[in-house]
Formats: sequence, C-alpha cells, structure tokens
Amino acid sequence: MPDEVDDFLERWHRFVSERDPALLDPLLAEDISLGAPPYWGRLRGRETVQHLLGLIVQTIEGFTYHRQWRDGRELALEFTGRVGKLELQGIDLITLDESGAIQKLDVLMRPRDAIESLQETITPRMQAFLAERSGGGA
Amino acid sequence: MPDEVDDFLERWHRFVSERDPALLDPLLAEDISLGAPPYWGRLRGRETVQHLLGLIVQTIEGFTYHRQWRDGRELALEFTGRVGKLELQGIDLITLDESGAIQKLDVLMRPRDAIESLQETITPRMQAFLAERSGGGA
Repeated sequence: MPDEVDDFLERWHRFVSERDPALLDPLLAEDISLGAPPYWGRLRGRETVQHLLGLIVQTIEGFTYHRQWRDGRELALEFTGRVGKLELQGIDLITLDESGAIQKLDVLMRPRDAIESLQETITPRMQAFLAERSGGGA
Repeated sequence: MPDEVDDFLERWHRFVSERDPALLDPLLAEDISLGAPPYWGRLRGRETVQHLLGLIVQTIEGFTYHRQWRDGRELALEFTGRVGKLELQGIDLITLDESGAIQKLDVLMRPRDAIESLQETITPRMQAFLAERSGGGA
C-alpha cells in the first residue's frame, strides 16, 4: 500500500510540473469528487475534474510543492504559486482509493484575492467545457 | 518530542471547544506569525494573533476537527464549521517550536463566500483592537 502512495505522488508531481491533464488519466477514480476553492458544492466525475485540474495547473504560475503529510491513503500537499501578480498558498487534501487513484480531493487556498482571480479566469472556461459536453454548443 | 505534540494538540482542542483565548497563553510563541484566509501579509506577535484566533473560534459555529496529520513538529488539522448559514472547510497548518508552542500558523479555508463573511465580521473588531493597542482610542 505505501508503494501505491509513492507511485501516486510521483505521477501527481509529474502532472503538475508538465501541466498535462492527460497524465491524470490513471490518477482519478471514475466517481472522483472535487471541492474547489470558490464553491461549497462539489464537482463530480473523472472527465469534469480532469478538465478543471488541467485548467488550474495551467493558470497558476510557479506551482511549487512544499510540506507533504501522509497518513495511510489520506494526504495533504502544500503548494505555493501565483495568479498574475498575486501570490497564493494552497493545499490539496487527497483521499486515495484502494487502487491508488484519487477518490476525493479538496483544494483550499489563501488569500481571498488570489481565489477570486483564479475563479475569474477559470469559470468561463469551465462553463464552456460543460456546455460543450452537454451538447449545448452554439 | 512526540509528547510535546500530544500535549499541544490536547490544549489546542480544549481552546477551540471552550472558545477561550486565555487558553492560548502557553500555546503561542512570542514571535508567532499567522497567515489568515483573507490576506497574503502575515500578522505577527503573540498578543495580536491570540486576539484574532479568539475572534475566529467565537465567530465560526459548529467548529469540528476531522483529519489530522503530523510530521514531527509540522501539523495539518482539518476542520469544518459555519459562518451564519454558510458552511466551510478549513485547515490549520502549524509549525511548533522546540518548546511545543506555535511558531507559524497558516489558516486556509473554502469556499470563497464563507471567507468573505468571516472577514466582514472579524475585520472591524480586529481594527478596533489594533487601534486600542496602539493608543489611538477615541
């Protein structure tokens, strides 16, 4: 089991450094749920979460991981970065399933203006993705 | 050293459940710094941080701790609660010094509207406290 966690962490850090959402394929459970910084309601399903995580790592500059906590399959990964000129600190709270894929992910960040700036950039792109997926294109 | 961490955690949870800032006295280093959810800049010094932490635990209803990660003197404590009708999830990222007091504390929360609501309640009270401390009373 520890090997699965090590393997997950190696693949996760590769996804963030290469900013390539395709690298998430083996890392997300089919029924993954994500708690994003701006909203209380959760995003559900691999395809939707994969798209959002891709947008997040492509929007945050200088994404760097720092402290890392592990307790079995429960992980907490601290990061810093920038959105435009705004510095931010965040944490990924991750629950892995038995196969080592993410079942549940919560992303918490500070400060407030960085969350707002990230939201302004990402929300229209997420809405376009969801509209296209539901067949509601122009 | 693990005993100091255990002792810290027991005292910290008592402070949160009793909402009594006086219980923080032995838990904060003299030169503690706090990264609060709304701002990037840090609050510094025991008296100021003690006052703010008191306001936070008195403002958040239903404060409940969940997952808890430890790595030596680096801790991550997940909590949930409510501000008015808004639910929130947060985490305390804590660095203890050699005596088991908090040297550095970062508080990250989601979602955005709960951070805004907490800030609206607490900021004027913090400003009043800081004005009084600097001798700038009416």
